[in-house]
Amino acid sequence: MISVGIVGGTGYTGVELLRLLLRHPNVQVNVLTSRTEDGRRVDDMFPSLRGHTDLCYSDLNIDELKKCDVVFFATPHGVAMKHAEELVAANTKVIDLAADFRLQDLEQFEKWYGMQHACPELLKDSVYGLSELNRDKIKNAQVIGNPGCYPTTVQLGLAPLFKQAEVLVKPESIIIDAKSGVSGAGRKASLGMIYSENSDNFKAYGVAGHRHQPEIVEALENISGLKDVFDHIVFVPHLVPMIRGMLSTIYVDLTDAGDALDLQALYEQFYANEAFVDVMPANSSPETRSVRGANQLRIALYKPQPKKLVILSVQDNLVKGAAGQAVQNMNLMFGFEEDAGLQGIGLLP
Amino acid sequence: MISVGIVGGTGYTGVELLRLLLRHPNVQVNVLTSRTEDGRRVDDMFPSLRGHTDLCYSDLNIDELKKCDVVFFATPHGVAMKHAEELVAANTKVIDLAADFRLQDLEQFEKWYGMQHACPELLKDSVYGLSELNRDKIKNAQVIGNPGCYPTTVQLGLAPLFKQAEVLVKPESIIIDAKSGVSGAGRKASLGMIYSENSDNFKAYGVAGHRHQPEIVEALENISGLKDVFDHIVFVPHLVPMIRGMLSTIYVDLTDAGDALDLQALYEQFYANEAFVDVMPANSSPETRSVRGANQLRIALYKPQPKKLVILSVQDNLVKGAAGQAVQNMNLMFGFEEDAGLQGIGLLP
Amino acid sequence: MISVGIVGGTGYTGVELLRLLLRHPNVQVNVLTSRTEDGRRVDDMFPSLRGHTDLCYSDLNIDELKKCDVVFFATPHGVAMKHAEELVAANTKVIDLAADFRLQDLEQFEKWYGMQHACPELLKDSVYGLSELNRDKIKNAQVIGNPGCYPTTVQLGLAPLFKQAEVLVKPESIIIDAKSGVSGAGRKASLGMIYSENSDNFKAYGVAGHRHQPEIVEALENISGLKDVFDHIVFVPHLVPMIRGMLSTIYVDLTDAGDALDLQALYEQFYANEAFVDVMPANSSPETRSVRGANQLRIALYKPQPKKLVILSVQDNLVKGAAGQAVQNMNLMFGFEEDAGLQGIGLLP
Amino acid sequence: MISVGIVGGTGYTGVELLRLLLRHPNVQVNVLTSRTEDGRRVDDMFPSLRGHTDLCYSDLNIDELKKCDVVFFATPHGVAMKHAEELVAANTKVIDLAADFRLQDLEQFEKWYGMQHACPELLKDSVYGLSELNRDKIKNAQVIGNPGCYPTTVQLGLAPLFKQAEVLVKPESIIIDAKSGVSGAGRKASLGMIYSENSDNFKAYGVAGHRHQPEIVEALENISGLKDVFDHIVFVPHLVPMIRGMLSTIYVDLTDAGDALDLQALYEQFYANEAFVDVMPANSSPETRSVRGANQLRIALYKPQPKKLVILSVQDNLVKGAAGQAVQNMNLMFGFEEDAGLQGIGLLP
Repeated sequence: MISVGIVGGTGYTGVELLRLLLRHPNVQVNVLTSRTEDGRRVDDMFPSLRGHTDLCYSDLNIDELKKCDVVFFATPHGVAMKHAEELVAANTKVIDLAADFRLQDLEQFEKWYGMQHACPELLKDSVYGLSELNRDKIKNAQVIGNPGCYPTTVQLGLAPLFKQAEVLVKPESIIIDAKSGVSGAGRKASLGMIYSENSDNFKAYGVAGHRHQPEIVEALENISGLKDVFDHIVFVPHLVPMIRGMLSTIYVDLTDAGDALDLQALYEQFYANEAFVDVMPANSSPETRSVRGANQLRIALYKPQPKKLVILSVQDNLVKGAAGQAVQNMNLMFGFEEDAGLQGIGLLP
Repeated sequence: MISVGIVGGTGYTGVELLRLLLRHPNVQVNVLTSRTEDGRRVDDMFPSLRGHTDLCYSDLNIDELKKCDVVFFATPHGVAMKHAEELVAANTKVIDLAADFRLQDLEQFEKWYGMQHACPELLKDSVYGLSELNRDKIKNAQVIGNPGCYPTTVQLGLAPLFKQAEVLVKPESIIIDAKSGVSGAGRKASLGMIYSENSDNFKAYGVAGHRHQPEIVEALENISGLKDVFDHIVFVPHLVPMIRGMLSTIYVDLTDAGDALDLQALYEQFYANEAFVDVMPANSSPETRSVRGANQLRIALYKPQPKKLVILSVQDNLVKGAAGQAVQNMNLMFGFEEDAGLQGIGLLP
Repeated sequence: MISVGIVGGTGYTGVELLRLLLRHPNVQVNVLTSRTEDGRRVDDMFPSLRGHTDLCYSDLNIDELKKCDVVFFATPHGVAMKHAEELVAANTKVIDLAADFRLQDLEQFEKWYGMQHACPELLKDSVYGLSELNRDKIKNAQVIGNPGCYPTTVQLGLAPLFKQAEVLVKPESIIIDAKSGVSGAGRKASLGMIYSENSDNFKAYGVAGHRHQPEIVEALENISGLKDVFDHIVFVPHLVPMIRGMLSTIYVDLTDAGDALDLQALYEQFYANEAFVDVMPANSSPETRSVRGANQLRIALYKPQPKKLVILSVQDNLVKGAAGQAVQNMNLMFGFEEDAGLQGIGLLP
Repeated sequence: MISVGIVGGTGYTGVELLRLLLRHPNVQVNVLTSRTEDGRRVDDMFPSLRGHTDLCYSDLNIDELKKCDVVFFATPHGVAMKHAEELVAANTKVIDLAADFRLQDLEQFEKWYGMQHACPELLKDSVYGLSELNRDKIKNAQVIGNPGCYPTTVQLGLAPLFKQAEVLVKPESIIIDAKSGVSGAGRKASLGMIYSENSDNFKAYGVAGHRHQPEIVEALENISGLKDVFDHIVFVPHLVPMIRGMLSTIYVDLTDAGDALDLQALYEQFYANEAFVDVMPANSSPETRSVRGANQLRIALYKPQPKKLVILSVQDNLVKGAAGQAVQNMNLMFGFEEDAGLQGIGLLP
């Protein structure tokens, strides 16, 4: 049993971490912080937890966090980087669900997040926590930058194409039309997020620029080993009137080599040993509800036109896109079974 | 053509007033105020109005409002009563969609709304704007207190029973189990109102006490001429994951006289000449979508057990429960056709 | 490990049983039947199960079912009673999620379900499977009639009042205003159930009579030992635009004795040792999402007026109201931990 | 006043036609047919119409239809073409909301709709009813093929680019990622359409091929005068958990000429005189709710990357995408004001 702390336990990713960790066989959650709810029982705030825990919120106390084996930051951007060095010095591992340790490019970080990085040295040693692609590095990491939700669907959706000897696709042709449920925007009082503004409605947002674009670009560069070719990919996110769920529809132009290959077989092989990535049979249409509450990403492939590939990549943004992937990373870091605490079957309907 | 002002044009009742008034044949909207959006085009904020108006928001300027024939207050409680006397003195009529002119009982007003009334004398002369029951008084009113949404469903649902020579029901037995869409809570940044907190969810709220309870009690006393018998009625509102719509399920114990009567016929006769109250045939189940966007209230009656009456009363909370009824009152006050601007058919689906 | 069969594996209760049983530590699902999908993999139909099972549907084969230790019927009414005798003779236990073994009153059964009972003798020996109230009988039962969803909320909501020496409430005053998500209507092609007919809409249904009314009456008679006093209770179900979740708002008149008691304490004591019934603190408002996917029923009490009690009783209709309760019964019948396979925390949001 | 008939009055487009035509100043609806509801009052089926009409359904009687000035077919594909010749011979105009008169290419029609065309000669004389692009031909047409919902968003979204002397875009680069509310699938009992299968869910469908693809191709050829260059455009529709609304996100590669132009100005000029096409200001994000219930299509443009144009095109699929556009066509055919009966402001929220 390791001792776990969660900083920021009143948001959706925080309570989702709790849902997973309170039933995890190797873990004891000992610290749960909140700036505003100090002393309050967490199950008073989230009655779904009644009967499962006696935890109370406490103010962030770095000494208490240092006693933990690992601390998750389910906080706004910029919090984890303020505490990470001290925690690492105390031999406490850090998993940040915000963006502090996602981008290695400091300039991009400052441009998109509007703040200077607090610990650039530690950032260099940190590991980008996409378990399936960085498994070995994650096992030895002290600090994990847990991927953004959209970038998770895109990377796992595209990785098999860029891990081949041949050039299968034209990287500059990539268009990502992404759709997310509303919980991706977090749990905060905001006019744009209220029910009557979002229900029975659909729209694009962030078309002129979204923070996940530089993360996608950097990640694809790392996956492919190619530089500069992803700078002009197009990424348009949309907001779906549903709570959980994310679907990225990815369009790529195939090269002749890519067009000639059996890409369905390629993907199936690539993910054959992955518990949490499911390549669906040809002609499938992955639905977000098929992963509701589950740490699972499902992929389907189509070639609707010659030399055109469409990749459908679906996940629960709060699980594989956030808290579940964070737990998966923790499992790797501590040598637990990778699927420990993550075996639950999603709710359908 | 009369000149109309709207104070508070950024909330849902304000924009609903605009939707109705911009197509009203006898009306020109000349003033639209907002504390926060001064100078902004209203169709920039609400693109559904693009092509229908060039109106801009302005700060509340009492002199501009005095030039109007009538001013609607689609504001929080306590605003209309601060300006009503000055407007009335300038011969400008006032229709308040908040609670300032709903309760004649000052003590109740102060208890439930936490403020002193600013113009008790004017309150006495004001008229409670339930068009169907107070038509004659409304025609001559200078100030209208537009009814609350829940109280509208309850009064129109119960009125026929209390307007008879005989005692048909036991007033102390009344139980109102009411359900409202989320737009009833207004358009404001509030954690409890965000999409992910309300979608795919159902709950009661305000069970220990709701501001519409004293309004219902006072209104039923006025309708029936009975005092003290409604003090202990039970009113439990619930929140439905939908934008618009309200259904009150009202339970009453019948007297022997009430049990013996043909209540379906009684209701049909009572509302025979009302354009906006529809008594549905026996065994109907009025759905909220049947009145979506329409100034219409529909009623159905059931006697599931001997001497038990169940009344289903349904409306669009933003129309017959707010903006539509306000326009209906205006029509009465200015001698327009009562249904002018209110003939639109609701959206189904 | 016991061997389990599920008859009717294409409906929502069937797939919910699978979700729970595939992760149950003491159980192996060996048979899953469907009239229409013989030979098809269940995870082809329900991709949320991909990676969790290799089960295929088969036609109902009574010899295969006899090899099971227990068979769940997640079928329309009238199926289980045709096979139960043969299964019991083979020492296979039966848990019916439909109505065949709910009502002991054959006349009522025939009136409300429009069919003759196929095995009245076995019905007499069957046990009504409300785990909390019938635990001892369930342990020794061969055949269980799993309660209806509405009756579960009502019985657990009212039981503490009727298990006292004193008469606390007036039984004839009971009014149940119940609200259910749409999944309660099952998974079938029906015009009234399609999305555009139900979304953004609210209505009552079955006001003139609903099959769960006689079940509620019989159950309350059994709980209280009182006859004839519940015949005229009022039960009005409503349809909420959400998938899962059920809230019953129950109104009762208290006697002087009931009014004098601390009912909050009474309820808390009554359910003190129950894992799956949660009496919330005073002034709570149980939300359906607090039990989404969990085998949990939550209760809150209010006294909004003297001698009036309001009971709010909430559950996931597919779990505590159907499949979860069925698994809870199975656990009791086979001596497993009562919460085996039922410890999952619900999804919030 | 002209006399109007509607064939197929029980589907969503039929009842939407009624909603618009019952308040149209120049029209009297005299015939409303249904195969299944002969003799039933339409407001019994759709209570939203109570108080607005006394119409009853009748069986399709060609002699009654011939007395009409115009007949709308809100029927499945293949119905209108069986009756159109006889109606035209009787000088009755025909507006088909299904696909019978959309495709001039008979081979494509037979391939995608699985039936032979019943009146190829009349088809040649029929006019494709996209009002903004075919206004003059529509004015003189006897038979109108009302466009499909997706093709309407695509054509109006792309037309300005293809009506220029210069080549602005690479036609073969077009990718259409389209999203529709569920009402687009019609009003029929179908398992895939029920509430619990669609709510809180998102998916693509028809990726391997959708009937609107050949319509889009043929239409773009007609608009641009170019042949063969659109054959390989990619069109992927998705299903959004909302009732009404459609958003197409269209991606095109610009030529150098296109990249150099002020496309925002180009679009604004192109649609400057169109009442029902709204080019929103730069950086707008058109939401489906901004056109809910309104005969309006809104467009916004983005250039997120060099030489990449993203067009957002939004409408209410039942109005501008179906019934509203049909009424607009009727207005043109009979010389009414083009916006007669179509001035209603959409519901927001």
